[in-house]
Amino acid sequence: MSTFGKLFRVSTYGESHCKSVGCIVDGVPPGIALTEDDIQPQLTRRRPGQSALTTPRNEADAVQIQSGTENGKTLGSPIGMLVQNKDHRPHDYSETDVYPRPSHADYTYLAKYGIKSSSGGGRSSARETIGRVAAGAIAEKVLKLANNVEIVAFVSSVGPVSIDRDPRSESFQNLLSTITREQVDAAGPIRCPDPSVADEMIKQVEKYRDAKDSIGGVVTCVIRNVPVGLGEPAFDKLEALLAHAMLSIPATKAFEIGSGFIGTNIPGSSHNDPFYIDPSTGRFRTKTNNSGGIQGGITNGENIYFSVAFKPPATISQEQSTTSYDGVDGILAARGRHDPNVTPRAVPIVEAMAALVLADALLIQKAREATRSFVNPESSI
Amino acid sequence: MSTFGKLFRVSTYGESHCKSVGCIVDGVPPGIALTEDDIQPQLTRRRPGQSALTTPRNEADAVQIQSGTENGKTLGSPIGMLVQNKDHRPHDYSETDVYPRPSHADYTYLAKYGIKSSSGGGRSSARETIGRVAAGAIAEKVLKLANNVEIVAFVSSVGPVSIDRDPRSESFQNLLSTITREQVDAAGPIRCPDPSVADEMIKQVEKYRDAKDSIGGVVTCVIRNVPVGLGEPAFDKLEALLAHAMLSIPATKAFEIGSGFIGTNIPGSSHNDPFYIDPSTGRFRTKTNNSGGIQGGITNGENIYFSVAFKPPATISQEQSTTSYDGVDGILAARGRHDPNVTPRAVPIVEAMAALVLADALLIQKAREATRSFVNPESSI
Amino acid sequence: MSTFGKLFRVSTYGESHCKSVGCIVDGVPPGIALTEDDIQPQLTRRRPGQSALTTPRNEADAVQIQSGTENGKTLGSPIGMLVQNKDHRPHDYSETDVYPRPSHADYTYLAKYGIKSSSGGGRSSARETIGRVAAGAIAEKVLKLANNVEIVAFVSSVGPVSIDRDPRSESFQNLLSTITREQVDAAGPIRCPDPSVADEMIKQVEKYRDAKDSIGGVVTCVIRNVPVGLGEPAFDKLEALLAHAMLSIPATKAFEIGSGFIGTNIPGSSHNDPFYIDPSTGRFRTKTNNSGGIQGGITNGENIYFSVAFKPPATISQEQSTTSYDGVDGILAARGRHDPNVTPRAVPIVEAMAALVLADALLIQKAREATRSFVNPESSI
Amino acid sequence: MSTFGKLFRVSTYGESHCKSVGCIVDGVPPGIALTEDDIQPQLTRRRPGQSALTTPRNEADAVQIQSGTENGKTLGSPIGMLVQNKDHRPHDYSETDVYPRPSHADYTYLAKYGIKSSSGGGRSSARETIGRVAAGAIAEKVLKLANNVEIVAFVSSVGPVSIDRDPRSESFQNLLSTITREQVDAAGPIRCPDPSVADEMIKQVEKYRDAKDSIGGVVTCVIRNVPVGLGEPAFDKLEALLAHAMLSIPATKAFEIGSGFIGTNIPGSSHNDPFYIDPSTGRFRTKTNNSGGIQGGITNGENIYFSVAFKPPATISQEQSTTSYDGVDGILAARGRHDPNVTPRAVPIVEAMAALVLADALLIQKAREATRSFVNPESSI
Repeated sequence: MSTFGKLFRVSTYGESHCKSVGCIVDGVPPGIALTEDDIQPQLTRRRPGQSALTTPRNEADAVQIQSGTENGKTLGSPIGMLVQNKDHRPHDYSETDVYPRPSHADYTYLAKYGIKSSSGGGRSSARETIGRVAAGAIAEKVLKLANNVEIVAFVSSVGPVSIDRDPRSESFQNLLSTITREQVDAAGPIRCPDPSVADEMIKQVEKYRDAKDSIGGVVTCVIRNVPVGLGEPAFDKLEALLAHAMLSIPATKAFEIGSGFIGTNIPGSSHNDPFYIDPSTGRFRTKTNNSGGIQGGITNGENIYFSVAFKPPATISQEQSTTSYDGVDGILAARGRHDPNVTPRAVPIVEAMAALVLADALLIQKAREATRSFVNPESSI
Repeated sequence: MSTFGKLFRVSTYGESHCKSVGCIVDGVPPGIALTEDDIQPQLTRRRPGQSALTTPRNEADAVQIQSGTENGKTLGSPIGMLVQNKDHRPHDYSETDVYPRPSHADYTYLAKYGIKSSSGGGRSSARETIGRVAAGAIAEKVLKLANNVEIVAFVSSVGPVSIDRDPRSESFQNLLSTITREQVDAAGPIRCPDPSVADEMIKQVEKYRDAKDSIGGVVTCVIRNVPVGLGEPAFDKLEALLAHAMLSIPATKAFEIGSGFIGTNIPGSSHNDPFYIDPSTGRFRTKTNNSGGIQGGITNGENIYFSVAFKPPATISQEQSTTSYDGVDGILAARGRHDPNVTPRAVPIVEAMAALVLADALLIQKAREATRSFVNPESSI
Repeated sequence: MSTFGKLFRVSTYGESHCKSVGCIVDGVPPGIALTEDDIQPQLTRRRPGQSALTTPRNEADAVQIQSGTENGKTLGSPIGMLVQNKDHRPHDYSETDVYPRPSHADYTYLAKYGIKSSSGGGRSSARETIGRVAAGAIAEKVLKLANNVEIVAFVSSVGPVSIDRDPRSESFQNLLSTITREQVDAAGPIRCPDPSVADEMIKQVEKYRDAKDSIGGVVTCVIRNVPVGLGEPAFDKLEALLAHAMLSIPATKAFEIGSGFIGTNIPGSSHNDPFYIDPSTGRFRTKTNNSGGIQGGITNGENIYFSVAFKPPATISQEQSTTSYDGVDGILAARGRHDPNVTPRAVPIVEAMAALVLADALLIQKAREATRSFVNPESSI
Repeated sequence: MSTFGKLFRVSTYGESHCKSVGCIVDGVPPGIALTEDDIQPQLTRRRPGQSALTTPRNEADAVQIQSGTENGKTLGSPIGMLVQNKDHRPHDYSETDVYPRPSHADYTYLAKYGIKSSSGGGRSSARETIGRVAAGAIAEKVLKLANNVEIVAFVSSVGPVSIDRDPRSESFQNLLSTITREQVDAAGPIRCPDPSVADEMIKQVEKYRDAKDSIGGVVTCVIRNVPVGLGEPAFDKLEALLAHAMLSIPATKAFEIGSGFIGTNIPGSSHNDPFYIDPSTGRFRTKTNNSGGIQGGITNGENIYFSVAFKPPATISQEQSTTSYDGVDGILAARGRHDPNVTPRAVPIVEAMAALVLADALLIQKAREATRSFVNPESSI
């Protein structure tokens, strides 16, 4: 379905060739200063045509708030938002009328719905993510106000080129603790904060672009200043909600939190995160953070960090042998230019989905805390 | 929360030291032959004490159906099930009264709830998964009747020892297409179907067990005979629901579907799965299956396969330097014996959660198909 | 929250003084012919200014489909719809800035949200129902295609003037079996199909209008050609969902299904609806229909009929003694003209909410039926 | 479905002839003193055989807590509860094997599920309400601790005999403000607090009992000390949730809140509830309470009161002409003795459902309040 979240909830609509794409964000706290200026920056980071590495379609993607604010402040009512589609005429790609694009959603949408939209994959279009990014920007503002929560994603690998993501790496943990969104963008079009690695990544993307091919990559995200206690056992563990959110982004193939797959090869004796008391705050902290900020599905206040794998884009300009809708073998060659790698544009989408998960978990935990306090006033640790 | 699913839905209850653990399974189709004999086998595969590799507590874990069946057939009403806890007295582990166990849920549960259960981590107990496995067994029966769906999980890595999981590997794809649950169990206590790898895995587990340490691993799961069209864009893509389900299992750190992280380093031209028509059925098939049976969030009828990373168990018998609840640095040494590796016991839990996701998606898609057919009788591909 | 339904689901946004009001309808079956022309008629029936009996603001309320259709057919993706607000400037009713209007939502919204929208009651505005009516029109189309379901609401009482709603009345049951939407509208501005009663109702409304006062009334609704088996025990009984839907409409105070309150004074021996076999179809029917088409929460195929009470509109032009936001006693006199009775305009809203409940229940039951058939092919009655 | 609520949530299972009936209550705040003694009293008030007016089956209905508490305190984890069914053998009522009971759920359950349970109507059994009452007792305890909320239901009419429920009646409003559960029970078996009316009600019940017939009635419920701000626009208005909850109780046909149907005939000028400031608290109050404590779907702090209509029980001992499952006309005569009127036993069920609605709304509003306070610290009225 097209709705995500329980108390802080977004519903989205829209595909490539309709009038507009947009969303309704329900459960936004009242009294927050909010205008389009709070939302546009992440939409602008998401849109195509930002560099020679991304598809050149230059869509302005200007968001328009429809409801839920007055005099620049949220009312507590649902916030409707929309972005016009510049070209909403059903298009005429003759090839994709004939062939379901391999590893795209053309075939499965037709199989599920029995009708083919002019864009083929309907809601699998990347434009569907506009509503997510707009909603995520509001969620981020709530989290900032609530606890100064910071969410920063960046590209950590492209093809074989990767920064060191070993959870035991001091430089990786330092990066997670300090990286800012400004640094990510300043590092160049690939949005990898390590300049030497970024250069290698760009070369990879250019290589595949020039070969009319594509390549995948990994986006890593850190969430700092997370309140303790977010996440709900047993099925709504915070990492489960994050995994759900991330794997709902188009083109994703994997998710790992904290030590992830590497963690399966670290002995428990060194994987465990021992506790200590932070002398400055008196709060429980852990000396290491292989847990990725979540234990038993509940945040422990350490940095949450996770990585999301994006496959190589399915739409490539080189010829592919496949079968037509009519079952005739043939050659599909997509026209036009296409993103050879989606990770830089995926960065704000990953941030948005992370914000939506956190904002919802925050509201739910606020309900838990409030009831806990009135039934058991002394309870605290 | 403790409820999972929309139309086929399970709610669970219970922790380590209460009277019973159990679940309510709602939305089970009526008229299915169902007794405890359908459910017990997977519970038995899940329980501790099955081999020298797992914790020796021998709990019988006999399931009792409370409702929803009559004369051995389901009525369509909710199926209540429970398993008695053999020892439901609050225990007295003095160490864990003093220390929150590192990388366990003791601290976060106390922080969230302000009360400490005798078992420390409350619902993070592995016994919470009993309800999942019992419910999953019913889901599996539904899927079997509906489409002869087969779900088989197995251990694919322990520490550094791994079978080849490259999606381009012919032997891996063959394994996915043929492996049976019987073969998995026959392969020995580690539940890895490749005998030579299994031996190495067992040595790994023994090494860490003997060192009073622990080690992680990976469980891989395949789902065969999946109907085309399951999964709901945009937020309820089937891989997103599977990721949610898997990351809700205790001790999981990562999920990958199809080509996963490896897929980020395969060029689009070879990662794309070209279509062909299966001459025997006339149906669309793909020549490769890097997609893992899901495209655009919707099943395409190919095998679904995914892997789940399990961290090393947090409870180890060796001494750990950490801090007590009172903030005093000290040494925690857990008594008793503990699972040095959870992957063999995780196999039926992964299968259960996969079945719950699929059964719910199947029911939802049946609703979609039915409405599609009455509004548009000719629609089909 | 602003979302209603499980598989067929609407989310709405918008209040009186924002840019637009609208909705997202998710779960609409694909392949249905659908344009604005299918939706506008019910919106037009809902809008103010239709007669001297309703408020004279003449808002065009033209709906614009944003997404989810192509070439006049639904795609299966969410349908975004919006209606521009003609005047979306925050207005300046000085009185309502000073006084929370009695029995309006001004006070409770301020108490809940801590912020006052210029229109006072925020989402309690009647304009919020535009999204419901637009979504309901789509639901109706689905129901029509599925089973030729007919939904007709009408005004059955205004103040003390009422048609006979006794469930044992033959004329009432005949009315329910035959009344059409065209007849309801043809009967005049009060939308009561009995001409002599309608005249008396109009006199009531005029009396209260002329006295700068208001009066309540009852809307009765019948749903015909309902498939057997809709509704889900125990908490989602169909009458419970209908009650939920109806009491979510602004200004409603009561709901009764079938025999309702009258039924509490009919002995069981005559209240029970005996079965017989319809010789023309071979299907089970009931000789009477005190049940209102639902037994045990599940439809039995008879007409569903229910009534909804609407209170007198809270906004009246005469002076009211009350207290200002500052706690100072004073006199509030609302400017402008206001609906002295909302029931005629409530008719399409009641129909819309009924359609939303039924369409969702239909989809869910289609899932039930499909699973039932594959596990138990012979099952039928 | 068998789950109710969002953050405070109950799932139930069980029918007449299975091993046990029970529920899982999720979202219970931790640290509350809770044992079976808190739950049993309402179950005892619900059980049959309490007086000559109710069915003589004397089921002990002793509740057993399975999980979620330790040392008599809640842990914050789900509370599993069950009540054994004394006789869980499928019974052999030959008549009901042959005939679907008129106005019972036998036919619709068979039509929906294609299978007949031995008790006929499956989950429509009154025993399904045991889980609700047990869960409601916990909800009540939460509400008591949170705000000293009091919920009291009583029988306000039986057949034609009724107390005065006009919302303008001073004695009715006084009754609502003062009535206690103890007074309700002390008033005798019919649970109507007005002794002279109660006598007439009892005569009514006896009359129908002696005639092997049955009669309906109305249960009225008041909720006092309700916090301001509960309820969520637009679809989850508090009265909509209450209506949903009440119409999900077996045998209910109508719901009215505040002035209800009577309110449709009260002019707006006297129906509106003017505000004043309570000098003792400084809080906004209303001089009258036709709104029933809810305005715009949100509580205003006044008493919530509502009434629920219960039809005459469908199972009567006198002969009924109807049709067998095989479509043969004949005479059904139910054996045994049956409740001639359900309202006294419905009293604790109505209270339980009211408590479940309020506890969930309270948790949700606590989340709203918390976020409101951190984004806008000064917001208050």
